[in-house]
Amino acid sequence: MTLTPEQLAEIADARAHARPTLRATAPGMEAHLYTAHPVLDHGLVRVIDYMGDDAAITQAARVSYGRGTKAVQNDEGLIRYLMRHWHSTPFEMCEVKFHVKLPVFVARQWIRHRTANVNEYSARYSILDREFYIPAPENLAAQSTVNNQGRGDLLQGDEAQRVLDMLRDDAMRSYDHYEAMLSQDGQQGLARELARMNLPANVYTQWYWKVDLHNLFHFLRLRADAHAQYEIRVYAETMCQIVKDWVPLAYGAFQDYRLGGATLSGRAVKVLKRRLAGEVVTQESSGMSKGEWREFVEVWGEWKNISDGSTR
Amino acid sequence: MTLTPEQLAEIADARAHARPTLRATAPGMEAHLYTAHPVLDHGLVRVIDYMGDDAAITQAARVSYGRGTKAVQNDEGLIRYLMRHWHSTPFEMCEVKFHVKLPVFVARQWIRHRTANVNEYSARYSILDREFYIPAPENLAAQSTVNNQGRGDLLQGDEAQRVLDMLRDDAMRSYDHYEAMLSQDGQQGLARELARMNLPANVYTQWYWKVDLHNLFHFLRLRADAHAQYEIRVYAETMCQIVKDWVPLAYGAFQDYRLGGATLSGRAVKVLKRRLAGEVVTQESSGMSKGEWREFVEVWGEWKNISDGSTR
Amino acid sequence: MTLTPEQLAEIADARAHARPTLRATAPGMEAHLYTAHPVLDHGLVRVIDYMGDDAAITQAARVSYGRGTKAVQNDEGLIRYLMRHWHSTPFEMCEVKFHVKLPVFVARQWIRHRTANVNEYSARYSILDREFYIPAPENLAAQSTVNNQGRGDLLQGDEAQRVLDMLRDDAMRSYDHYEAMLSQDGQQGLARELARMNLPANVYTQWYWKVDLHNLFHFLRLRADAHAQYEIRVYAETMCQIVKDWVPLAYGAFQDYRLGGATLSGRAVKVLKRRLAGEVVTQESSGMSKGEWREFVEVWGEWKNISDGSTR
Amino acid sequence: MTLTPEQLAEIADARAHARPTLRATAPGMEAHLYTAHPVLDHGLVRVIDYMGDDAAITQAARVSYGRGTKAVQNDEGLIRYLMRHWHSTPFEMCEVKFHVKLPVFVARQWIRHRTANVNEYSARYSILDREFYIPAPENLAAQSTVNNQGRGDLLQGDEAQRVLDMLRDDAMRSYDHYEAMLSQDGQQGLARELARMNLPANVYTQWYWKVDLHNLFHFLRLRADAHAQYEIRVYAETMCQIVKDWVPLAYGAFQDYRLGGATLSGRAVKVLKRRLAGEVVTQESSGMSKGEWREFVEVWGEWKNISDGSTR
Repeated sequence: MTLTPEQLAEIADARAHARPTLRATAPGMEAHLYTAHPVLDHGLVRVIDYMGDDAAITQAARVSYGRGTKAVQNDEGLIRYLMRHWHSTPFEMCEVKFHVKLPVFVARQWIRHRTANVNEYSARYSILDREFYIPAPENLAAQSTVNNQGRGDLLQGDEAQRVLDMLRDDAMRSYDHYEAMLSQDGQQGLARELARMNLPANVYTQWYWKVDLHNLFHFLRLRADAHAQYEIRVYAETMCQIVKDWVPLAYGAFQDYRLGGATLSGRAVKVLKRRLAGEVVTQESSGMSKGEWREFVEVWGEWKNISDGSTR
Repeated sequence: MTLTPEQLAEIADARAHARPTLRATAPGMEAHLYTAHPVLDHGLVRVIDYMGDDAAITQAARVSYGRGTKAVQNDEGLIRYLMRHWHSTPFEMCEVKFHVKLPVFVARQWIRHRTANVNEYSARYSILDREFYIPAPENLAAQSTVNNQGRGDLLQGDEAQRVLDMLRDDAMRSYDHYEAMLSQDGQQGLARELARMNLPANVYTQWYWKVDLHNLFHFLRLRADAHAQYEIRVYAETMCQIVKDWVPLAYGAFQDYRLGGATLSGRAVKVLKRRLAGEVVTQESSGMSKGEWREFVEVWGEWKNISDGSTR
Repeated sequence: MTLTPEQLAEIADARAHARPTLRATAPGMEAHLYTAHPVLDHGLVRVIDYMGDDAAITQAARVSYGRGTKAVQNDEGLIRYLMRHWHSTPFEMCEVKFHVKLPVFVARQWIRHRTANVNEYSARYSILDREFYIPAPENLAAQSTVNNQGRGDLLQGDEAQRVLDMLRDDAMRSYDHYEAMLSQDGQQGLARELARMNLPANVYTQWYWKVDLHNLFHFLRLRADAHAQYEIRVYAETMCQIVKDWVPLAYGAFQDYRLGGATLSGRAVKVLKRRLAGEVVTQESSGMSKGEWREFVEVWGEWKNISDGSTR
Repeated sequence: MTLTPEQLAEIADARAHARPTLRATAPGMEAHLYTAHPVLDHGLVRVIDYMGDDAAITQAARVSYGRGTKAVQNDEGLIRYLMRHWHSTPFEMCEVKFHVKLPVFVARQWIRHRTANVNEYSARYSILDREFYIPAPENLAAQSTVNNQGRGDLLQGDEAQRVLDMLRDDAMRSYDHYEAMLSQDGQQGLARELARMNLPANVYTQWYWKVDLHNLFHFLRLRADAHAQYEIRVYAETMCQIVKDWVPLAYGAFQDYRLGGATLSGRAVKVLKRRLAGEVVTQESSGMSKGEWREFVEVWGEWKNISDGSTR
């Protein structure tokens, strides 16, 4: 991430002037406001604004559930209860607005989350900068041989070098031609909305992205997951750290019930109950397909004989 | 449910005339089209139109995943895979439109599901019928003493009778007054949009409700659940039977992974693993609150010693 | 509106403690925070939280349109440009959360606006208060004789009195019976989720309603309109005054382009052009139906001969 | 557009087998089903499925407005009334599913319409084809000198040729390198999810896009507009022709009230009224900014003296 001195001064300026407000404030979030968190080689995540805190969630829940709620449960217990029972509307009462700089191929995945507000830099209207994502060598992975949608081992030696050279050269040449097509020096200059089509998907774009906490959690659950593509996961992980500082109780519940939790099918529940009752269950006797069984065993392991510790 | 002879004739007529189409058809759904399924004392659910079938789901998934998919998996395996991994967009490719007649207090819960299209009978514009939901004696439940949001035992004898009398008398009187206020017989007659405010929440309304299969499953998961209020659950259950006939493979996956499945927190996963390893875990040593533990034990039972079958 | 001393103290307390924030603040909105604006006989609107101001709108637009924008236009010009060209996403960058107390029949209209977040007081969980909307005599209108969905003249004398008596008596009796059914004094007490069905649609409920500025404007355009039902219009009008203080530039543009503007069909454009060219156009020669013509003339008047001032 | 013989056979096969259905059918739409409409050089639009017809719109409106509606208005009058008064929910009762093949930079604009269901070809999972959009010479426009977001004159001679050469060469080279990076011939082969980042924004992708008629109209209003970028407008125009055959009454109303209509600000209404009253209004006396006035005059012309035909 390379911020210009002007941009750094702008951020410092924005952080220098506190104003009084009667609204709820979240001290952990005030500490993040405007500051740029670097992601990938030129990307960033910044909090531009936020609304609400942990107390805003329980306050909304108490509108729904009325008086009784107050006495019964403390804030943490109530938030965990809401999360456990998929009562999502109180989490929608918090809102956050991010400024994100990200490669276009990441933006294309990200935008599939529809319940959010977006203002993206317009390449119809303005000229994109010469900034492209080039993977670090430790992220240059081969196609997985077992998963059509995944990565395998790292590329090595010459192959890695060839890939990096191609990515860099093609990006630079595409941008040179982008500029050449736009140039009005001795020629008319191609329309911006056309010239942009020459830029590859690792060019950086940026946007303001505003979302409520419930939908943000949904995004984070899918994109901070180990199966998400690395290049979007690093954005999600950066946002996880920010959300943790913003609404620590809600984030704690999210971490326990969503990120760290597990979803079981009816078949899987039955298998676990049979195991708990001491029965040996195999894929054949589980009623699961091979794929389901493999995923099940990844979490729960093969059966072990409790009495002698042997695995069957 | 009381359909007029005109309404019955209209349904019979609509079912009498098949037309040729090049679209995908679902024979199980054709059998339901237009027919009124009775719910509660005057309510109903009818399918008015539908789009897509099980094959439309896998077809959409194969657009996403390209060629490879075809060979690898049969339709059922692919649909179960999509459901298991929360790949929801292929399920959004099916759509259904229902005609529903339901009490207003049920409609108020129902409408909280926002991702759907609705046209409701307008009491600003038209006059509502004299139809009210009066619970059958076997559904006249007392307030739960343990759950603020639930039902306990059935009301008995005099108390049940008093409640039914009040509900019936108040409904009839409110409707008499509604008619008296609207009457233009020797007076001006109150505006409909005002007169309707006198009608209680058990009056029946009706609407067209159109939704995609993914969002319908979300609705059914919450509303066909044992914790949903009985009066909306019976609608959800009726719709479950219809969906089962429409997209049997998708419904099967939904039933296994959502209706019959379980969601575990990170803490619960750890407790189950400790149990599987033979450890005795109590609420105190589980890290769960009393409420979480109670819900956990409802599903998984107290620990049993596998060797001697005793429960601790 | 009757706030308890406790509620008034709570509001005063919330307004007494300003905290420093680095976020954008809107002084006009700070002045409204928490304060209850009375609506109807027992209703209210309060701002609970907000995000953004006029500058947040132009800031988001400038992310989209890049550098050029800064020099060219001042904030007001840019905001008017965005509004005129239906560029709605920058307006989505502002968010507001209201606490609203309103009759159930108003809530039922309101909730049809789906792009918002809502937490409503739950009558499954808690007990509703004895508060009902009873129209003031000056709002007790007869059914319109020309518009199925509208109001005509005011009810007079005995008829008005009879209506008010019925509304009041039925509300009180329904609430008495609601309490009687719930009572656990010498009986079990009916479940809350059932007892509530006896309450008429003029009973008050309350909710937190959170919405972005674009969708709020859409709501206000429809509900602050002269054709909206009076009982929801007064809420919309109250909110208009609040929004005007919050984002004065955006509200000004909204007022000019939406509230005070007009939408013309292609046919109407042609008629106006013919008129401007001096032609006399009648309904017959306009190509419009009688209904369209009537609505057209309401705005544009019958043709007048400019030279002699006569109307044809 | 180049369909393979297999694809053509598949379409012919799908069109060869009509099945009986009890659902509403739209003969104009049956004629379009599955057939590929070519757009741009390699793009296409196909209807894959649909739900409802003009009658489904009025049927839904009549659920809302009850009995009265039937007698009063014929279908066309009712549909025009709904469109005129922005009663959008009945139009949501129709649904359509398209298969679209389109360049990525068009897809990026398109996806900003959030209220739709999408399944896109996944370049994480599968390998994209060697197909790129190269503008025809008659669409190779220069940047507009008056509008940052628009096109000016056509590029001529050498400049045009240089642009086409760059676009073609860069596309081919990028794809060669894409293949080289993916290749597992004597090397591991880069992960697909990474290799795709080298492809420029004029590469073709494809998706299933499902949307209700109200939201489709909103899309078409913005994208079939003269200010939309040519490359998305041609898709919108193709879809307009299809929708016209599907729901001719609704499309007629849409064309008159939206595509061919005009929106006036309050200021513009006042200016037109003054003009109609014979007054000469200039930009200075209009209260409009220069930009607003320019757009106003584009539609309404400068004032002409009716008596002598002179323009001031």
